[in-house]
Amino acid sequence: MRKGSRKGSRKESIKILNDALKDMWGGASRLTKTASSRTRKNSLKAWKNFTTVSWRVDLAKDYEEQSKYAHGWYATWSEVVSWLVPAIVGFLTASAGCFIEKMVEWLGDLRFGYCADSLIWATRESCGPSWFDWGHGYAFYMLVSTILATISATLTYFFAPLARGSGIPEIKTILGGFSMAGVLDWNTLVVKIVGLSMSVAAGLSCGKEGPLVHIACCFSNLISKFIPRYARNEAKQRELLSCACAAGVAVAFGAPLGGVLFSLEEASTLFPSRTMIRAFFASSVAAVSLAWWNPTGSGKLTMFEAHYDEPPHFVEYYIFVMLGVVGGCVGAVFVHYNILISKARAPGSTFRKHCPMIVEVMLIALLTAATSYHVLYTRVLSNKAIRALFFPCSEAVQENADPHTFMLDLCNGEEPVISGDIMAVLALAGFLRFVQMTFTFATGCPAGLFIPSLYVGAALGRVVGTMATLFFQRFGMQIQANPGIYAMIGAASVLGGVCRVTISLVVIMFELTGGIQLIVPFMLACLTAKFVGDYFTMGIYDYCIVARKYPYLHEPDESMHHVFAQDVMDDDLVCLHTAPMAVSALMRILSESKIGGYPVTLSVDDETFVGYVHARTVKAYLEEQLETSQIVTGETKVGFIRYSKEKHNDVLDISHLVDEAVVQAAGKTPVAQVHSMFRNLGIKVIIVVGQGKLKGMITKKSFINAVEEISFEGYATATTTLQDNEAAMLKRTHSKFY
Amino acid sequence: MRKGSRKGSRKESIKILNDALKDMWGGASRLTKTASSRTRKNSLKAWKNFTTVSWRVDLAKDYEEQSKYAHGWYATWSEVVSWLVPAIVGFLTASAGCFIEKMVEWLGDLRFGYCADSLIWATRESCGPSWFDWGHGYAFYMLVSTILATISATLTYFFAPLARGSGIPEIKTILGGFSMAGVLDWNTLVVKIVGLSMSVAAGLSCGKEGPLVHIACCFSNLISKFIPRYARNEAKQRELLSCACAAGVAVAFGAPLGGVLFSLEEASTLFPSRTMIRAFFASSVAAVSLAWWNPTGSGKLTMFEAHYDEPPHFVEYYIFVMLGVVGGCVGAVFVHYNILISKARAPGSTFRKHCPMIVEVMLIALLTAATSYHVLYTRVLSNKAIRALFFPCSEAVQENADPHTFMLDLCNGEEPVISGDIMAVLALAGFLRFVQMTFTFATGCPAGLFIPSLYVGAALGRVVGTMATLFFQRFGMQIQANPGIYAMIGAASVLGGVCRVTISLVVIMFELTGGIQLIVPFMLACLTAKFVGDYFTMGIYDYCIVARKYPYLHEPDESMHHVFAQDVMDDDLVCLHTAPMAVSALMRILSESKIGGYPVTLSVDDETFVGYVHARTVKAYLEEQLETSQIVTGETKVGFIRYSKEKHNDVLDISHLVDEAVVQAAGKTPVAQVHSMFRNLGIKVIIVVGQGKLKGMITKKSFINAVEEISFEGYATATTTLQDNEAAMLKRTHSKFY
Repeated sequence: MRKGSRKGSRKESIKILNDALKDMWGGASRLTKTASSRTRKNSLKAWKNFTTVSWRVDLAKDYEEQSKYAHGWYATWSEVVSWLVPAIVGFLTASAGCFIEKMVEWLGDLRFGYCADSLIWATRESCGPSWFDWGHGYAFYMLVSTILATISATLTYFFAPLARGSGIPEIKTILGGFSMAGVLDWNTLVVKIVGLSMSVAAGLSCGKEGPLVHIACCFSNLISKFIPRYARNEAKQRELLSCACAAGVAVAFGAPLGGVLFSLEEASTLFPSRTMIRAFFASSVAAVSLAWWNPTGSGKLTMFEAHYDEPPHFVEYYIFVMLGVVGGCVGAVFVHYNILISKARAPGSTFRKHCPMIVEVMLIALLTAATSYHVLYTRVLSNKAIRALFFPCSEAVQENADPHTFMLDLCNGEEPVISGDIMAVLALAGFLRFVQMTFTFATGCPAGLFIPSLYVGAALGRVVGTMATLFFQRFGMQIQANPGIYAMIGAASVLGGVCRVTISLVVIMFELTGGIQLIVPFMLACLTAKFVGDYFTMGIYDYCIVARKYPYLHEPDESMHHVFAQDVMDDDLVCLHTAPMAVSALMRILSESKIGGYPVTLSVDDETFVGYVHARTVKAYLEEQLETSQIVTGETKVGFIRYSKEKHNDVLDISHLVDEAVVQAAGKTPVAQVHSMFRNLGIKVIIVVGQGKLKGMITKKSFINAVEEISFEGYATATTTLQDNEAAMLKRTHSKFY
Repeated sequence: MRKGSRKGSRKESIKILNDALKDMWGGASRLTKTASSRTRKNSLKAWKNFTTVSWRVDLAKDYEEQSKYAHGWYATWSEVVSWLVPAIVGFLTASAGCFIEKMVEWLGDLRFGYCADSLIWATRESCGPSWFDWGHGYAFYMLVSTILATISATLTYFFAPLARGSGIPEIKTILGGFSMAGVLDWNTLVVKIVGLSMSVAAGLSCGKEGPLVHIACCFSNLISKFIPRYARNEAKQRELLSCACAAGVAVAFGAPLGGVLFSLEEASTLFPSRTMIRAFFASSVAAVSLAWWNPTGSGKLTMFEAHYDEPPHFVEYYIFVMLGVVGGCVGAVFVHYNILISKARAPGSTFRKHCPMIVEVMLIALLTAATSYHVLYTRVLSNKAIRALFFPCSEAVQENADPHTFMLDLCNGEEPVISGDIMAVLALAGFLRFVQMTFTFATGCPAGLFIPSLYVGAALGRVVGTMATLFFQRFGMQIQANPGIYAMIGAASVLGGVCRVTISLVVIMFELTGGIQLIVPFMLACLTAKFVGDYFTMGIYDYCIVARKYPYLHEPDESMHHVFAQDVMDDDLVCLHTAPMAVSALMRILSESKIGGYPVTLSVDDETFVGYVHARTVKAYLEEQLETSQIVTGETKVGFIRYSKEKHNDVLDISHLVDEAVVQAAGKTPVAQVHSMFRNLGIKVIIVVGQGKLKGMITKKSFINAVEEISFEGYATATTTLQDNEAAMLKRTHSKFY
């Protein structure tokens, strides 16, 4: 229902209206202050498919609905549901996570051989002696990989184009207060689960972690459709989605705390404590469910557990900070090239015309398989390699782990291998994965980037750790460097450089590895990586949001105090007035224009602002009146007469439909403040007033557009004129006196 | 400077003004809509010593100042300082933490004996064979304890009364946007450090953790006084304070992540990402400094490290949730009685008249020592007991720890002691500590409640763990219950029940113990404890804020949609008008009234709202003009003539001093929205307008007062009249038509 309401662009609607208004200038008019109203309409056109959510209106509506049943069972039921849904989402996400895990293991091993006893669900390990390797290893490896990736891409292309990539930029946009059709639907969910299993099993340089957040959000959306309170209320839906995000990360990394923090730090725009506590609950349930499904067989959630009980030496802290610097740079390089590649293969580009999406994925899979096969560390699945890179050799010996298949020849008895060869191989593996992931992320199949980022960082860290060991030995320093620790810090650095998350990343790394002694090193590395990375580019998700032209309002920036609401407002408006007009005329305006709402002023001449009416509400009310009331016809006069100064008889008063509580701001309000209002109050529109008169309107979309313009062009030009005028005016009034 | 500006109550000021206004009705007037303007002035009087901070105004001011030097070294220096100060605060807090730790160890051991070799800094352990126990153990134990506590209380009473208690309620209030004189001064800092060492060493049932947050904030405040950018800007100071909070917790628990989250979840009201990342940095520096000082000698931050590698059995999760329920109840009982006791001994109460503060602390110390001596677990310092309650017996044996002094007889070889006796003793110890802490918290010496809460919970958990072991043995279930794990969960539950923090508590528990396998149990227990506790009472800090009558705006509640801005606004206002008046007259109004600012309307008759002027700004400008300008004298006319409709000559225009960007809201804005505006926009005042006319004003203080009234009285009564009127009015306008 919401989807359709803003399909047409503002410009068109205004044109239609203008024609309509010629008939009935009494009740509606157009407010145009300046001839040269700035046109920011071009980018806004791209956003016509996004509907803005108003938390203010939706929460008030929810309160009204709920208070009808304030006592009795309904209230209790509502409360129970608000906990039950996150719990169910947590459980379903954990189940989906396990299913994907199992699929990946089975399909991943299919690249190497097959099980004679049972074809389905049999891995090399579970099959035992009846496992047969394919004859031509390399060829089959490439073949199976390519087939799997192609199936994944085909499913995505034909059934759910929105299932591609990680889905986190889309989730961020939705949580930021916009509706996007199809992102959280059934087909997306199913294709994301099946396709993801295949792309990961194909050995593509991608992970299942980001997409699990998307999967959790799909579950949440689909469940909320069955509960009237949520189905009809976009703001309440977003509370559930924030919880789902937490559950998604909890399942992805076995990190329930990290999940809540990821939702708080990266994904959600509004995160009140009632949401936090439910996110916490969803995360816990997801973690318990995951432990209960026990996909790894260890009964533990920790994916890459590695015990290093001794805290690192202080000298090593310098190296960790340097790893953070390198990680930040690597992340920035990835972001830069990935976005370049994404633009080059965007729909409509020369490349895309010659190479369909599915062929592209096929090629990427083929090349990935062809390059990965030759190096042990890239041949196996990424998470196996990461575990080996993190794991301490002494513990591997204690646990009788296989030094080849489990530790990937990284150990020499109880000691890690320290040699130039291993450094070269790891550097090669890391570089390969880096190049592969730069091409793979945002191609045409479900694919996340957490695991490849961790992989690149782990390889890098291990190389640095090996170098550090050699260095300490060489200079006779009594410091025992553990390359495994460096691998973990490196992993955190690169992931930090790519995503620019800090606190949630530290918690996630910590829950991934159990490295209690490494919290401070993780913190230093992540902080440095974010700092260095931010110097060069935005984080990958934010860059994706910009590149894909999604409307998203970032956190307010300090440097927006010199541009004012009057500089970014839209002063080319259609207004309604209090004077009565015919029902049919009003209905015509409402039906023909695609605008969400109209400011109401006293009259055409007196622009004193009265309130705001939501088109949908008025339309629904009038339709209802026309149907049910005996007296109301198309000819009946209708008006906001409670506000009118004149007396009117025989008029249907629709004053109660006026939303007086719409947020107002003076023209001189700094953009920083307007920004903070839009983001922190969760509103959709701000009315600009001056001495009580309507001056203009700022919608969230037009504001996002304006903010982007200001940040990109530099606001110097935008404000010079104003500042000069202002200064001149001040001067003039002063000189009057002196 | 800010402190003095609102000393008088509003009521008085309005009276003074009214007299003044009789002379000069042209430029100023009083807006009184209704004769029966509700009087909420009584509680507001208590708040006259609190100045409200406006983030909106302060940040705009900061931007203006900074942009003067946008280029060059100054900008770089500003950026460096914004990182340097948190780092210095982190380092100083870590140093203070170590000093306190050392003091506590030394003074704590003095209760048992003395070192013949050196009297200062010598503990029983460091002294070795020259350590002598006092002759009459019990008597000396009581004597030394009482003396230490008395010194602590005396210092507090005479030099820094605001150093008592934990300081967290005060910090919350300050971060919520109010200035409180003396809370963060030198004397408070020194007394807090010295007094705290003594109260903890005296064996009082109190901890040093909460107060360390206060100490960190003192450091931050004192340093910021030397930096003009922060010294003059309350909003920027609060950014540093949020970072200091994080550093405080980081040092207190060796939990850098927990610190950031505590600051985010519990302490701070506004926590933008620029603050978060600096809090993160402050926390890291504090942790590194702490590791460098190495007060425990282990080189680790983890205070109560305890390795339990096996995740608990699923059946045990039910017991953990039950522990959460019990913890929530224990917390609620503590809050209830502690507040009752606090009220009974408040200044001016019968009890206080007969028993001075110092005597009270002396008595508490004497009774605590007298009761604690007989039980091993209460005789030693609380944190030694907690470590023993958490530690696994098998590891103690491996590390050759003394089973009596280290493990406090809790182990029987590698197995924990499982017997009715140990349960009885632990239950007794826990109960004793609970009663002691209920009397000790908020008495007249620096004292935190984290450690005693953990203690009570640990004892409780260990009892439950022992019971569970017996139960599983009895019914032949193959579950190995670890009483140490139950102790940790119990500790988290009780602390959760007392403070009602969730995510930061889980992270803190986890950083305290390194229990990676216990994250989900911690989450479940904390969540349950909060849920159960909230059913009965508020959290202790919030309750303290209410009981001590601090102004604090909690997070918006969903259930405030039925009361509106017009119901809580103040409509008995003094306004200025655009028409000119003499400089001397305006100066008189500004000097005699103690009001922070005035709304400006067009004229006495035309109440169209123009803007808001801050009294201080206008006063400063006029004073400057009187001093520097040749033409301006007391007789000169001054006015906001740019807004005036009439023409004026020879008038000093002060229109540029009008703050047009002050936040406006319609009378029909729900209180929930107003609440969210005050809290999320960090503003001080909201102007209520209706069709452009000034209707009233809501200050943050009067709003807090109104919200408290609404929540306490139930808003049914407050709104019935309005709702009826409203309904009646709607009916009337409708019936007009039908």
